[in-house]
Amino acid sequence: MLEIIKGGVCAAQGFTASGIHAGIRKNRTKKDLALIYSSARASAASVYTTNKVKGAPLAVTKAHIADGYAQAIVCNSGNANTCNANGVEVAEATCLALGNELGIPASDIVVASTGVIGQPLDITPIVNGIPALVAELGDHSDDAAEGIMTTDTKKKEIAVSFTVGGKTCKIGGIAKGSGMIHPNMATMLVFITTDCAISPKMLQKALSSDIETTFNMVSVDGDTSTNDMVTVLANGLAGNDEITAEGADFNAFMQALNTVTVFLCKKIAGDGEGATKMLECSVSGAKDEFAAKTVAKSVICSSLVKAAMFGADANWGRVLCAIGYSGAEVDVNKIAVSFISKKGEIKVCENGAGVEFSEEKAKEILLEEEIVIKVCLGDGNACSVAWGCDLTYDYVKINGDYRT
Amino acid sequence: MLEIIKGGVCAAQGFTASGIHAGIRKNRTKKDLALIYSSARASAASVYTTNKVKGAPLAVTKAHIADGYAQAIVCNSGNANTCNANGVEVAEATCLALGNELGIPASDIVVASTGVIGQPLDITPIVNGIPALVAELGDHSDDAAEGIMTTDTKKKEIAVSFTVGGKTCKIGGIAKGSGMIHPNMATMLVFITTDCAISPKMLQKALSSDIETTFNMVSVDGDTSTNDMVTVLANGLAGNDEITAEGADFNAFMQALNTVTVFLCKKIAGDGEGATKMLECSVSGAKDEFAAKTVAKSVICSSLVKAAMFGADANWGRVLCAIGYSGAEVDVNKIAVSFISKKGEIKVCENGAGVEFSEEKAKEILLEEEIVIKVCLGDGNACSVAWGCDLTYDYVKINGDYRT
Repeated sequence: MLEIIKGGVCAAQGFTASGIHAGIRKNRTKKDLALIYSSARASAASVYTTNKVKGAPLAVTKAHIADGYAQAIVCNSGNANTCNANGVEVAEATCLALGNELGIPASDIVVASTGVIGQPLDITPIVNGIPALVAELGDHSDDAAEGIMTTDTKKKEIAVSFTVGGKTCKIGGIAKGSGMIHPNMATMLVFITTDCAISPKMLQKALSSDIETTFNMVSVDGDTSTNDMVTVLANGLAGNDEITAEGADFNAFMQALNTVTVFLCKKIAGDGEGATKMLECSVSGAKDEFAAKTVAKSVICSSLVKAAMFGADANWGRVLCAIGYSGAEVDVNKIAVSFISKKGEIKVCENGAGVEFSEEKAKEILLEEEIVIKVCLGDGNACSVAWGCDLTYDYVKINGDYRT
Repeated sequence: MLEIIKGGVCAAQGFTASGIHAGIRKNRTKKDLALIYSSARASAASVYTTNKVKGAPLAVTKAHIADGYAQAIVCNSGNANTCNANGVEVAEATCLALGNELGIPASDIVVASTGVIGQPLDITPIVNGIPALVAELGDHSDDAAEGIMTTDTKKKEIAVSFTVGGKTCKIGGIAKGSGMIHPNMATMLVFITTDCAISPKMLQKALSSDIETTFNMVSVDGDTSTNDMVTVLANGLAGNDEITAEGADFNAFMQALNTVTVFLCKKIAGDGEGATKMLECSVSGAKDEFAAKTVAKSVICSSLVKAAMFGADANWGRVLCAIGYSGAEVDVNKIAVSFISKKGEIKVCENGAGVEFSEEKAKEILLEEEIVIKVCLGDGNACSVAWGCDLTYDYVKINGDYRT
């Protein structure tokens, strides 16, 4: 059985983590360098942004895990190391310095960066910080989670235990992501660790399949980042028979992975830049999965829907509008829409037209922090869920002057 | 030669217009019903939103101009007449009442609505207002322009004179559009009148071709409206030989039409909901026109670019990011970016990486009300231009509680 446990990326056997202020950021109270380390070499899988402008660390990581294995993850915040002439050199130098300190090959290190694009990343504070970063390694998932934050207001971490072949396994993850969030293929920065034994090939398969219904269904602002990346390390210390094919064990792993990823998706959506509430669009009755996903994402991405939710305004016409321009095949005359929160559910549209409803009750429901926009297309059996957040004054404030 | 003239939709011979407060809106100081009338039956062409959820007036208009001709345009603001069970009936009843008053068939009337979606439109104030609306007909393009406004802060009208086959022709237009602006195929509400003689077929051809590089390249918020529509009436009173094929006369008409549409595009973009500045993204050096348009539109639609422009922040990394996720084929290492306003031009990125620039000078340039984001892809000869606006606190304010 699945069980939520403490420990984040340090919950699984053999994993330690740390986070320090190395001086990449001027603000000395903010950690800006994070490390996750496995005592044993681990199967590694990654997915990356589809943005053609890619951060230099992504190219370096891709090369380093081409053999299917890695042992550590290092990540700085405060600078994306993207669109810099010497970006790859700086990322390689980071791995080299860290590999020396840890006594492992640089090619077994996953490297990531997040922050401003197009400003050269100074290697000096990183190299100077590495001894302290390694010295601090311990049960410090929360320090690592803080070290990767940018405009995030909350740390995002989770861990669960599950059983594979009679052995108890653990899987945990941390994530950052608040702005420039509209993943396609991969997303934001998410680091997941597990002691489950699974081959690199099956690990990649599990991750690539999972993100299609999790991180790729999150949007904060429609901007697909240049540095999105999700990495999983699996060191096998739980002692289960290595998962090398589909079957019950693989399914158990997929379920645990999905629990971690869905949790982190909601955390990222709810902590979107300037957000006051998390929005979930739940679509059912679609012709096929493509239609369901297209509709769910279109609703969650609509600036007008997002602004209406900020104002707790049951302006469902905007939901219909977003369904209509989504590009999905739908029969407008069959659409029903409800708003749901812990204060209840209210139906606002049926058969593509408005129904009478209490504006007061709708306001009460929409003033909550977690809102579900339920869309029934009445046109088939496919379902989908997407996550986002409201559009607020603070989003504009944060992004009107991000660099200062 | 083309010349800018006064008169809006009443500049062309035989056209009169009016706008009144009929009582569709509660605010008695705001006109909410507009009429444009041609003394002679006119060639008519229209393009409509591609949103699958379509306002009832669009279906009625499509049927009415199926024969290629119309004589009047009526439009209400304050209610979109969309997602209502009786929407088509109300739109037809409007045309019937107006046709009786004008003494023309209801089937020669173009009908449009704009405002809130999903609230039944009461026919009573419209029917009661029609006698006054018709009585007011005259050189009142500005009243009609006001009658179709919603959250617009400025009336949008223009007219130009041009020559076809030795005859002086005139063409003029009015537009509304401030939110839910991300046209696809057609856009917003734009009504254009001309006394040029042109067949319905060639008029439709001119319009359908023109919007590909004009209204379809405007975005305020990425939301493609349910009620977008551009209509042109051409009554032939200028006395030129009717344009029935491509050639010099058709080109002269296309040029005049394009002058009107580009002007209205910029006005709509600059008056986007909450906007403090108009943004133009000018792309050159693209592989092909598709790539040029895709890149221009992606930059203009990026929430992060829009917010940075609001803050006059030369955060060009966001421009690169938006180019990268646009889906267009580009070579990142060849991209150059400059910001231009009447205060000058500043280059911020070359060969896909940052160049040193004066932040002070950049700020001075970006504090202006019209900003050009110049993108050179260095990869071919295709060009494109797109128009949009910044993302501001007021956009959130306006849309957080639009219905009250």
